[in-house]
This record gives sequence, C-alpha cells and structure tokens, in this order.
Amino acid sequence: MHEVEKQYKALTELTKTTELRSQAVADQLAKLCLEAARFAADDLTVEEVVSKVPGKRYGVLRRASDGKRSRPINLDRYDAQFAEDFLATRGLTEVEELDNEERGRLLYSMVMSFCAANDILKSGDQKSPGTFFEVFVGHLFSAKYGLDPMKHIQVLNLDADSKLPTDYIFDMGPEKSKIHLPIKLSTRERVVQVWAHQRVLDGVFGAERFKGVLVILAETNYQGKSNSVVEVCLPKQWAVYQMFIARMFRVYYLDVPEKYRDLGKRYPFIQVRDFADFFDEADKIVDPPEAT
Amino acid sequence: MHEVEKQYKALTELTKTTELRSQAVADQLAKLCLEAARFAADDLTVEEVVSKVPGKRYGVLRRASDGKRSRPINLDRYDAQFAEDFLATRGLTEVEELDNEERGRLLYSMVMSFCAANDILKSGDQKSPGTFFEVFVGHLFSAKYGLDPMKHIQVLNLDADSKLPTDYIFDMGPEKSKIHLPIKLSTRERVVQVWAHQRVLDGVFGAERFKGVLVILAETNYQGKSNSVVEVCLPKQWAVYQMFIARMFRVYYLDVPEKYRDLGKRYPFIQVRDFADFFDEADKIVDPPEAT
Repeated sequence: MHEVEKQYKALTELTKTTELRSQAVADQLAKLCLEAARFAADDLTVEEVVSKVPGKRYGVLRRASDGKRSRPINLDRYDAQFAEDFLATRGLTEVEELDNEERGRLLYSMVMSFCAANDILKSGDQKSPGTFFEVFVGHLFSAKYGLDPMKHIQVLNLDADSKLPTDYIFDMGPEKSKIHLPIKLSTRERVVQVWAHQRVLDGVFGAERFKGVLVILAETNYQGKSNSVVEVCLPKQWAVYQMFIARMFRVYYLDVPEKYRDLGKRYPFIQVRDFADFFDEADKIVDPPEAT
Repeated sequence: MHEVEKQYKALTELTKTTELRSQAVADQLAKLCLEAARFAADDLTVEEVVSKVPGKRYGVLRRASDGKRSRPINLDRYDAQFAEDFLATRGLTEVEELDNEERGRLLYSMVMSFCAANDILKSGDQKSPGTFFEVFVGHLFSAKYGLDPMKHIQVLNLDADSKLPTDYIFDMGPEKSKIHLPIKLSTRERVVQVWAHQRVLDGVFGAERFKGVLVILAETNYQGKSNSVVEVCLPKQWAVYQMFIARMFRVYYLDVPEKYRDLGKRYPFIQVRDFADFFDEADKIVDPPEAT
C-alpha cells in the first residue's frame, strides 16, 4: 500500500473515533495532503491540456511509468509547493490568516493533491475522493463553528416517525440559523437532490430554519478525444430549482465555474462564491434570517 | 454483432424517425424480445439463487461457455416461453386482452429477456437496458393514449425563459390531467429526483395539472458473496418525499417490492401497483383531479 493510501486509511479510521473539528483531524488532513503533494513532486509531471473554459488553464498530472493520468486541474490555482510549505511550517488551522487568494490556492491544492494522487494510484475509485472531500470540508466548517455536525435528523410527524439520513447538519441552537451542508465533488444532473433535501428540511422544520450551503469542488470534465477540459453547467435548471423547489443560501466552489459566477446578480439570485470566502462570512450564514 | 444487439440498434434507429405509439415500434419491441428469449433458450440456463425476499424466488441466467451471469430475475414472473409464444402468434398490441396475471408475466418476461441477454452480451452496459425500458414503457403509454409524449417543456416566467428537459410528458388537453412519467430500472437514493421534478411541474404549471406516474422495473440487488438477492427499499424516505416535496399519483413496478406493497394503505398513501394494472386504470390517470 502506497504511503498516500495509508494516510487516507488513517484519516477514515481517525474520523470514526475523533470529533471532526479536532486538531487531530486537521493534522491528519495536512499529513495526507503533504504525502500526496510529495508523490506528485517525485513521480508525476504536470501536462497542460486544451482548456475550453475562457480565462482558465487546465492540466493533468501524469505518471511516466504507466501513462496514467489524473482528473483535470486548474493550473492557475494548483500550487502543490505552496501547500507543502504552508502545511509543513504552519498547518491547516492557520488557513484563516492567509489572504483570500492564497487561502483559495491552499485549499484547492490540498484537495487536488489527494484527488489526483488517488486517480493515479487507484483506478476507478470515486468513493475515496468523495469521502476525503466530505471530511475536508466538514472539518473546516466544524472547526470554524466549534461544533460537530449531525448526519441524521429525527422526523416526528403525528403517527409517522422516522430518522431521515441527511447531509451534514449544524445545529447552533434556537438563536441561530441551522446549516444544511451538502458536499459534492461535482454535481451534473444529480444536483436536484440538494434542493429537494432543502425542501424536506423546510417542510419538516419550518421555512428559514435551515440555511442551505452547498460546497462543490469543480464542474470540469476531461474529454479524451480532444485532450480538452470543459465545464459542465446547467444554470437555467439551477434557476428553476431555486425558484420552485427551495432556496439555497450559498454555493461554494473550490474552482468556480464561469457560467455560475454571475447567478447571484439576477433573479433567482443563487449566490455562487469561492470557498475561500466562507471563512469571512461564516457568521453571516448562521445569523437569523431577518438579520441578513 | 449478436442478433439481439442488431435488433436493439434497429429499435433505437426506428424511434428516431417513427412515432413512439406506432405499430412499427410495437413490432420491433416484439422482435427484439423474441430474439432475446431465443438467445436465452439456446445459450443460457436458469440458475436459482438464494432469495432473501419472503415469498419470491429469484434466479440468474448463466452462459456456460464463459460463466457470465445476468441480473436477478423473479422466477415466478419470468416465463420466456410464454412471451415467445404470445409475441410470435399475437403481438404486443394484444397485451390488454390478457388477464392481469398473464399480462404482468408477459411484460416482465419481455423486459427481463432483453435486460438479461444484454447483461451477458455486453459487460457493464447500463445504458441500453435503461433506454430499452424507457422505449418499452413509453410505447405502451403512448399507444394506450393514442398520443406521443414530449421530452422538453417551455418554462415562461417573466424575465426568465428556458426549456426544461423532463421525463416523458403526456398532454391530453385542458379537460384532462397531464401525465409526468419518469421511467427507471431501479431507484435507490436517486428517487428523490422524481418527487423534485414533480414539484417543479406543480410550481411552474399549477398544482394538480400533472399526475405523477413513476414506472420502475424492480429494486432487486444481487449479492455475490452470499449468491443471494435482496430488495433495496426506503419506504420511510418515500413517505417523507410524498409529504414534503410533491405527490406522486401512482408508482408501477414490473416486480413490486414487498416493502412498498402496502404504502397505499396508510398516510401519505403512495399508491404502489403492478404495472399490469395500468391498462385497467389508464382513464382514471387522466381524469381531472376532482373526479378521481
């Protein structure tokens, strides 16, 4: 088993027994990403591909020995050396001390280091990157709020009574908005689930009880035939969901798709932002609705 | 290319140029299923597996030459010989003349013949069975109502204007309910999409404008380790969706899961029925809501 895989396994073991917001999880995330960045530095080369996204450069990591390649990486954001230096000397808990641009670069580089390494070390494994990303984002949220999330919620309803499995839920008490936090590597047509689950929470617990915050890595797709990268976006469908199913309060991306960037400027006002912004507006998210 | 694959290709070509409700599509569906049934009779053997579903026997089709196996098949419903005889002498358009039990057996055997043959002829191809099943059910609905469905719907909304891709939509005019017809081989956690799309239609076009009718093949899952079949059911989640997202009017299965059979008897009253019943209550589906 490669060192990256060992550290990933250690992370999943750790989260079974330790609070998600703990220093131990921060340290293990850093350790894992450090190993992944070292693997990239030692064994992989960055290969630029054709970008069909205006204003963005994309590439893949390639292993020379067998030709295996990673998912597409935004070359303007990916900076494994910067992540390595920062994690080795300062650690993930200091992420807030970086300015917005550096913070976005650090978080993107950490996530992509592991995802890219895993793409090359394990063929066809979509589960590990998904789990890793959920732990990564879940840790940053729970560390920020000083509170671990729930993954089930009790639905009491006259003669029916059941436990509804959910995405992460943060409950800050009756004076604050609660958070509904779905976390996805990418969304495509499955994204309607997010609005549907928000609708269920609104229906069961009352409107404006939960702020919906969706965190997504990217919407890139590598097309082998043309060795190119596109962003798969469905802005008109998102608008229909925001109008007729429920309202999401924020959508954060680690690599914001160009076609979603301006959705917050016109009705139905879906606020799509860089995930680096979360740390500056975390208080606003849990403010009661009338105060926003 | 195997004869079954050729006939499948002919079916997909035909539906590009011919109305879904046409006799030509009925004949091509029969031809394809006949070929699949003959392939099963000549090259495959039925192998019973452990059924963890009370009251049902399941098996797989197996090809001796390479050991490849099909998805699980309900042995009490699968009767390829009956389907072969019926299709060769009478044809799919006469399905309504059968009694309810025979009709269910015919439809299930036709669908499973193609799906099982395709499982063995093409590894890891989930797309063809899905497309086939959509054409199969779509044809039966459109032949019954004498009307082809739409797959897009115009959403006009003040300064926003877009075409929403949908499942099949049948529009019988202002004196009837319209039908929203999603068609799935199985659902699992993706099923929330169905209720979410119903909610969008209710929101855009008004409550009770569309009756939601979901048609599903089965919810079986083969577990290799124990050589057994289970049904994957989430009745409590379905109830939450029916209560808080939208109302589905009918859910039809070709192999009704035991845990969903009684959902129509208690709140929120999800009417889960055998697909054979559709032909007897097709008029009721398009009745205006006050008349049901």
